[in-house]
Amino acid sequence: MIDPKDPEGAIAAAAKRCSNWGRWGADDVQGTMNFLTPEKRTQGARLVRRGVSFSLSQSFDANGPQKGWRRRTNPVHTMLDTGTDAVTGVQGFPHGLGGADDVIAMPLQCSTQWDGLGHIFDHGMTWNGRRADKVVTSLGDAVTGIETVAGVIAGRGVLLDVGRVLGEDGELPDGFAITEEHLRATIAAHGLEVGTGDIVLVRTGQLARVRRNGWGDYAGGPAPGLSFTTADWLHRTEIAAIATDTWGFEVRPNEFEEAFQPLHQVAIPHIGLFLGEMWDLDALAADCAQDGVYEFWLTAAPLPITGAVGSPVNPIAVK
Amino acid sequence: MIDPKDPEGAIAAAAKRCSNWGRWGADDVQGTMNFLTPEKRTQGARLVRRGVSFSLSQSFDANGPQKGWRRRTNPVHTMLDTGTDAVTGVQGFPHGLGGADDVIAMPLQCSTQWDGLGHIFDHGMTWNGRRADKVVTSLGDAVTGIETVAGVIAGRGVLLDVGRVLGEDGELPDGFAITEEHLRATIAAHGLEVGTGDIVLVRTGQLARVRRNGWGDYAGGPAPGLSFTTADWLHRTEIAAIATDTWGFEVRPNEFEEAFQPLHQVAIPHIGLFLGEMWDLDALAADCAQDGVYEFWLTAAPLPITGAVGSPVNPIAVK
Amino acid sequence: MIDPKDPEGAIAAAAKRCSNWGRWGADDVQGTMNFLTPEKRTQGARLVRRGVSFSLSQSFDANGPQKGWRRRTNPVHTMLDTGTDAVTGVQGFPHGLGGADDVIAMPLQCSTQWDGLGHIFDHGMTWNGRRADKVVTSLGDAVTGIETVAGVIAGRGVLLDVGRVLGEDGELPDGFAITEEHLRATIAAHGLEVGTGDIVLVRTGQLARVRRNGWGDYAGGPAPGLSFTTADWLHRTEIAAIATDTWGFEVRPNEFEEAFQPLHQVAIPHIGLFLGEMWDLDALAADCAQDGVYEFWLTAAPLPITGAVGSPVNPIAVK
Amino acid sequence: MIDPKDPEGAIAAAAKRCSNWGRWGADDVQGTMNFLTPEKRTQGARLVRRGVSFSLSQSFDANGPQKGWRRRTNPVHTMLDTGTDAVTGVQGFPHGLGGADDVIAMPLQCSTQWDGLGHIFDHGMTWNGRRADKVVTSLGDAVTGIETVAGVIAGRGVLLDVGRVLGEDGELPDGFAITEEHLRATIAAHGLEVGTGDIVLVRTGQLARVRRNGWGDYAGGPAPGLSFTTADWLHRTEIAAIATDTWGFEVRPNEFEEAFQPLHQVAIPHIGLFLGEMWDLDALAADCAQDGVYEFWLTAAPLPITGAVGSPVNPIAVK
Repeated sequence: MIDPKDPEGAIAAAAKRCSNWGRWGADDVQGTMNFLTPEKRTQGARLVRRGVSFSLSQSFDANGPQKGWRRRTNPVHTMLDTGTDAVTGVQGFPHGLGGADDVIAMPLQCSTQWDGLGHIFDHGMTWNGRRADKVVTSLGDAVTGIETVAGVIAGRGVLLDVGRVLGEDGELPDGFAITEEHLRATIAAHGLEVGTGDIVLVRTGQLARVRRNGWGDYAGGPAPGLSFTTADWLHRTEIAAIATDTWGFEVRPNEFEEAFQPLHQVAIPHIGLFLGEMWDLDALAADCAQDGVYEFWLTAAPLPITGAVGSPVNPIAVK
Repeated sequence: MIDPKDPEGAIAAAAKRCSNWGRWGADDVQGTMNFLTPEKRTQGARLVRRGVSFSLSQSFDANGPQKGWRRRTNPVHTMLDTGTDAVTGVQGFPHGLGGADDVIAMPLQCSTQWDGLGHIFDHGMTWNGRRADKVVTSLGDAVTGIETVAGVIAGRGVLLDVGRVLGEDGELPDGFAITEEHLRATIAAHGLEVGTGDIVLVRTGQLARVRRNGWGDYAGGPAPGLSFTTADWLHRTEIAAIATDTWGFEVRPNEFEEAFQPLHQVAIPHIGLFLGEMWDLDALAADCAQDGVYEFWLTAAPLPITGAVGSPVNPIAVK
Repeated sequence: MIDPKDPEGAIAAAAKRCSNWGRWGADDVQGTMNFLTPEKRTQGARLVRRGVSFSLSQSFDANGPQKGWRRRTNPVHTMLDTGTDAVTGVQGFPHGLGGADDVIAMPLQCSTQWDGLGHIFDHGMTWNGRRADKVVTSLGDAVTGIETVAGVIAGRGVLLDVGRVLGEDGELPDGFAITEEHLRATIAAHGLEVGTGDIVLVRTGQLARVRRNGWGDYAGGPAPGLSFTTADWLHRTEIAAIATDTWGFEVRPNEFEEAFQPLHQVAIPHIGLFLGEMWDLDALAADCAQDGVYEFWLTAAPLPITGAVGSPVNPIAVK
Repeated sequence: MIDPKDPEGAIAAAAKRCSNWGRWGADDVQGTMNFLTPEKRTQGARLVRRGVSFSLSQSFDANGPQKGWRRRTNPVHTMLDTGTDAVTGVQGFPHGLGGADDVIAMPLQCSTQWDGLGHIFDHGMTWNGRRADKVVTSLGDAVTGIETVAGVIAGRGVLLDVGRVLGEDGELPDGFAITEEHLRATIAAHGLEVGTGDIVLVRTGQLARVRRNGWGDYAGGPAPGLSFTTADWLHRTEIAAIATDTWGFEVRPNEFEEAFQPLHQVAIPHIGLFLGEMWDLDALAADCAQDGVYEFWLTAAPLPITGAVGSPVNPIAVK
């Protein structure tokens, strides 16, 4: 199905089949978030039954998986004021007040995150047919900055626990390419329907494994993930977004001989799809396995960092 | 009611009246978030009727209000990879892939935020009767870091648009102290009930004003805000959290002759209350004014930055 | 002499007259630093007579002049470990050891600095006739990064105290354009010779003024500085580098109707000249005025930040 | 000589023998830099004979040795403006001007550095008998910040190439403790005299080894370095400063069973000695080996970061 020697041809063909350019007008900056309508949102809210909430975010701290690839580091969190200072009496506030303040420096792609539409380009073109060098400069993304979807990512979430359905002990091995068939089998096993406007969470189990074994090459090394061949499914289903518990969403090594994240190259600039990476789906998945309900209300609001091509996010699922 | 010469006495008395220390056990780290139960969360989700969502976050960028007080600066967002680089052909990716990545450096208190329970101390003591110098060191907050509430801040939100109810043209003047009476009048005007587990948003209108006139001294200068005398109301109502559209939540100048944020000193370490600051309530308020509904589903998930005494947040209200 | 309506023409003409492209071979990355030979260095060392040393650096801290132009901020210095922590006993070191560590985040152009050869381009070309988009990408300056002159900036320094010679009370007014005639007059007044390989320090007195009056618009506003017409002098004298006590080296407002730092556009990419900015020359100048000796040994070593287009520097003059 | 079970006793005894507290008055903030007098500086300048200069700094970039110990990371250098932007034409400058600017975030102890006098404490006391919690808070070092020696570190440098004199192939093995005897033997081999006001550079050869083999545990792991027993020599010789080509100056593992950098605990707070770490002495050492001259003029000016407990530095040796 894939010619491993021709990523460029495969990408071009998939891009042509799956393009949403112009679908929401020439000025569109929200891509597949257009599928997440108020009606879908209202339906999603009805999924709150027990009031139990789950954070789907990994930690943001110095103990993360980043090893420096393309200067991606783990967050550096430092204090501007502390309790030790307050007790020592050096802060200078009146009436016994003491305070602590802090600072963070971090790549926006360091931990649980959304890829914005300005994150990936295909041959110098970005979402909706714009030139990448006119959109994303050193000043940031002037058109599709993550702030453009600050208010919209709240709706129906569905968990596809492919790891539990198809893996051993709930985990897919590194290098496992999740195909459309696998996705369908998981959806069927969960008794779900997946369609327009949904936010799809795919659990591979890799995060559970590295938690047990140490990060290793979690940040960029071999991993289970979506097959390049799912591009059409991602397009056809009209989902609003998709997220995984892996560093890079796609199966790694990628399925072509010389390639780097080819599915990104179709999904982001052509489908206009929002990809979530490094989400922690394990607690939610355990709950879903227990009650058999794999759908829920999901809010995953990026920080509206002006011009950012991605954002850290703490997604909250409520069942 | 307040002796303006004795902030220390007033704080001590209010702290005694309003203390929640031990209420949820000696090990508690979530304070008033304990009021936000699954049941409350389920009730909150029922408030989604139209599926319309609002981001309550200001921007995170270099154009913010910070002027350097206690080294608080505006965010600095820089790019690690850009579209101009991609088009120039210097990135080295195969098959026409290009990408952009970015980095941010910012105080966690620079824009729309939650104050964590380790943010303010009273005479060297922090929430639940712990010593501040054992809790918040240069390594961060080892006990009540903001990550401890990563998954829980989703529930019923209510907007108290005090600016619209009591102000002129929807805005309270700087220095206006919002009292319990004002809060009750606003609640009555909105036809609301406010109680256990609610997340209360108080709009003063100051943000609308500085948007029109320029930041000026928004970050720390005169502002409308809650009177010190509302401490008992904050405690008695058993609300889970409260947020305003101002820099500092409290009225400024503070109501004592020599004082700095005295209500914080009661609310955070003694009540264990979560305070939100610099929230942008204007779009939500306009909608509430139009449909007359001042309650909604609210998710306001902090980034789980390990050991942080606060967090930037993009709160999402859905009606 | 200058047609204020035609900066582009004036720049092109000066660039043609003053170009050093190819002078030290096609691969050269050090520009005018080539003039600073070991022989010149040996002569410079003979100028140490009294052993008195002067730091020519302004402070690096939050109280600097930066106001955010092109995201240039003042340095943010935070602590990773502190004495208050150590005394509190939370550091965990054995045998009574305590420690403090710190972090800085700063633009490389925030305070006393060298402009590297990759800092300014003329019509997309950089030093020695290279294309700017091949040299300076998001990864930094791959060819003329400041590390290429890490070891060489040590030699004879001369102070031209134009403020003292031509100004009132030692200060030139903002907008004062220092011409070749002014430079020559100052050199003559000081009894100096200036030539090949020298590092020339030009004191305008503006820094003394803003120290007295507050920063105001020191970072980018009106200032005394070198006239555009000094390009030929900068080229002809074969100096190795030149630095001033102002933000931008050139007179501001610039001498053309619509212009921005036109002398930079000739000096850096065409002459290959190293420019120092925001140097603090006041203590040195006072000493020179007293003993009448305006030449000295100067070491001004940039931090070898790989790929940087400039560097903070603490220049040390020894007389 | 050392009881490996009693670091605390050994430190206390050495501290008592070697203390310089009060030697330069109660207000002193420069410690052993007081030995570096103008006269010594004048003598040092006479050592410039050939005019050849050497940078003794390692690189400052993402490829450094830091692995995160106590949140020490490698520098993160990002661009605010680039050549690719300039060529794309998005910068908005007139007359063909283009520019590049950059930013750095780094621990001050990440690469070639000076330890300031506020870097290490002994039982809560810092240099000259001050309380560490009054000196070094979250706001930085209020007394002995590195800016206090901004202008003085220029004088006679001497290289003790212990690696070449006593090692195999110019390198001491990890764990090799350099004693006073070794220092004396090296000084004799080089035909040097070492004394008051000198800046002593000790080359172990470890940096050459890790350059060949990869960083490994350069940042904190086993290394050759000064024996704890050299405290008296450091004190008696009245040197102004000492630097090594290793991460931590002292031999590692340290010479006591349970210890961490015990010589620091004597040298910095009690002797008031400035320690340099991670200096790159290899090129200079090769030159010294060739011409047999191990003394030179050395300028090693820290960046005057207000309140910093250390500073990156690019030391320049001139022979």
